[in-house]
Amino acid sequence: MTDHDEVPSADHEFQERIRRAQASAGESGIDALLLSPGSDLRYLTGYQALPLERLTCLVVRAGADPVLVVPNLERPAAEASPAGASGLEIVGWDETDDPYALVAGLVSGAGTVALDNQMWAEKVLRLRDALPGVRQRLAGDVISPLRMRKSPAEITALREAGAAIDRVHANVPNWLKAGRTEREVGADIAEAIRAEGHATVDFVIVGSGPNGASPHHELSDRVILPGDPVVVDIGGTTPAGYCSDCTRMYVVGEPSADFLTSYEVLQRAQAAAVDHVRPGVTCASVDAAARDVIAQGGYGELFIHRTGHGIGLETHEDPYIIQGNDQVLEPGMAFSIEPGIYHPGRHGARIEDIVVCTDDGVEALNRRTHDLVVVPAE
Amino acid sequence: MTDHDEVPSADHEFQERIRRAQASAGESGIDALLLSPGSDLRYLTGYQALPLERLTCLVVRAGADPVLVVPNLERPAAEASPAGASGLEIVGWDETDDPYALVAGLVSGAGTVALDNQMWAEKVLRLRDALPGVRQRLAGDVISPLRMRKSPAEITALREAGAAIDRVHANVPNWLKAGRTEREVGADIAEAIRAEGHATVDFVIVGSGPNGASPHHELSDRVILPGDPVVVDIGGTTPAGYCSDCTRMYVVGEPSADFLTSYEVLQRAQAAAVDHVRPGVTCASVDAAARDVIAQGGYGELFIHRTGHGIGLETHEDPYIIQGNDQVLEPGMAFSIEPGIYHPGRHGARIEDIVVCTDDGVEALNRRTHDLVVVPAE
Repeated sequence: MTDHDEVPSADHEFQERIRRAQASAGESGIDALLLSPGSDLRYLTGYQALPLERLTCLVVRAGADPVLVVPNLERPAAEASPAGASGLEIVGWDETDDPYALVAGLVSGAGTVALDNQMWAEKVLRLRDALPGVRQRLAGDVISPLRMRKSPAEITALREAGAAIDRVHANVPNWLKAGRTEREVGADIAEAIRAEGHATVDFVIVGSGPNGASPHHELSDRVILPGDPVVVDIGGTTPAGYCSDCTRMYVVGEPSADFLTSYEVLQRAQAAAVDHVRPGVTCASVDAAARDVIAQGGYGELFIHRTGHGIGLETHEDPYIIQGNDQVLEPGMAFSIEPGIYHPGRHGARIEDIVVCTDDGVEALNRRTHDLVVVPAE
Repeated sequence: MTDHDEVPSADHEFQERIRRAQASAGESGIDALLLSPGSDLRYLTGYQALPLERLTCLVVRAGADPVLVVPNLERPAAEASPAGASGLEIVGWDETDDPYALVAGLVSGAGTVALDNQMWAEKVLRLRDALPGVRQRLAGDVISPLRMRKSPAEITALREAGAAIDRVHANVPNWLKAGRTEREVGADIAEAIRAEGHATVDFVIVGSGPNGASPHHELSDRVILPGDPVVVDIGGTTPAGYCSDCTRMYVVGEPSADFLTSYEVLQRAQAAAVDHVRPGVTCASVDAAARDVIAQGGYGELFIHRTGHGIGLETHEDPYIIQGNDQVLEPGMAFSIEPGIYHPGRHGARIEDIVVCTDDGVEALNRRTHDLVVVPAE
């Protein structure tokens, strides 16, 4: 855990984010936001805390200064973080204190509190019991709309993450060979994800041949064979806290004709969805732009997931590019466009870019070719 | 994610665990356990699932077979896991389905459900809304007592984890040198944690000089100086899913006399607590065994945390070795014994072993010397 590359580093940006969260909470009838370790806490304060059994909770109230409640063991780390540097009030609790009573005291009189979407149930229910009669809602309703609209500094951070994962993809042909297992190739990729500037490796999918037909297949001991199409979907988190996520397709030697036919449809579908992105269109319409091309190509039943997900401090966050999501795109929204076509038992394909909605269109943060990358069969 | 080294591999062990959880839930007045991805789900089924925004939920009911609800995207992974191999019923949901309504339908008529302690708030509140009037409790009340009493196979897995982290500590003197930063030393240690047989690196604390006085300090760019005592507290998770966690003390060159005086007290305190462990004594009394020695040595105010925590599929789990915990030790309980003495602004020290309560005493799973390890100052 390091906070030294936090985006943005300026205290006033965190203060401004908290101010916006307070205002939005007030408008939503929420008396206090109660945030546990995770991306929302990091977004509002720069404090990168691990979720642990001991309660850490940022209390953001409508008409009062925010307070960060931490176990005294974590107090030095909190003080050393941007949260401490910004002068945020930090209240510590000792090993045998009751931190839930402490938080309840800070929000006395509240009728509605909103909880971090990823707060653990054990904390949710203990807060419920410490605050009898108080309505619990989700803080994401307030914070997600803020996080969804990225600042220029955040877009820069996502652009850097995108360039880092592009450099990894550039080297995949050096590692992907017939005769190696997915796990061996994956180990090389994981090392490169770190070497190219990520602080953590979040996922490495190498789906060869029939394994590519399972979108969330990760790695196996399957030996890659000549003729295999291979889905390589990889991502990590940079020291600044922003995520990369990019899928490209490889083939070892000669692909089958049926694979090439469906891959051509997939390329058109992915490009159609990217081209559709601009301010004012809905997430659902971006999903439809990809889905329609695939359906017209005759593969509608084989595109079994949503077209994409927002990305930022988390790999998956709002806005989701999915049927039924009427969220209208605005400049600064960043998300994946990743349609796929999956032939059960045979092969699968997916192409994924992170894109940002700009003032008048779209910027793709991943720049490697969408063409099938052919690596020699020996 | 791999399930191939799961402990135990035998399906009947997982079935037996589910049977015990069903029985215990019934006795506790719980109609259904609702478990999300995490250690409880892995303990009961062997399925190692990541916590994601899409709902995965194991439904364990009193008088019916268990059902694993998964997004269809994760279905192949669930089927390939021990959960699938054991014949557990798996019900998939599609991207635009409502999985909360699906789970509610599976537990219709329930008056009380118990939720995974680490289930995310967004899922807790959506289940609350999908099951109006149904009381929500914590599943840990039922499952933690089962997990706390480790089987011989689990103790073997913890013993292997302990031996692996001992091998890392054996090499720390090769990396810990005056003039290097904590972060540089930590990078070498992290690499060794993987190389010695862990699947993941969970934490690396290198607390040199004054940084050692903050128990949860991790790594910094501080350059290690001659005379620094250094706290090295490290751990990872093995492919079988079991955690290691071990702290040893190092000093670069000559330590100060006051450090040596307090370190001698710490060694006696740690040994006293280990010696106290046997069936029938309480967790609180183990804590007191360490705490009393430190208080008698005059450092009572400087031992600012509990004496230890249970360990298994999670680094921190029941039983906690803390004042006020009347849990009585039984054979098979595994936990850390890790008293510390922290001199703010100067230095800190902690000694940590994982131990297991045996039929008639205690077995330490970490075997490296508790003496201060002196590394040359140049």
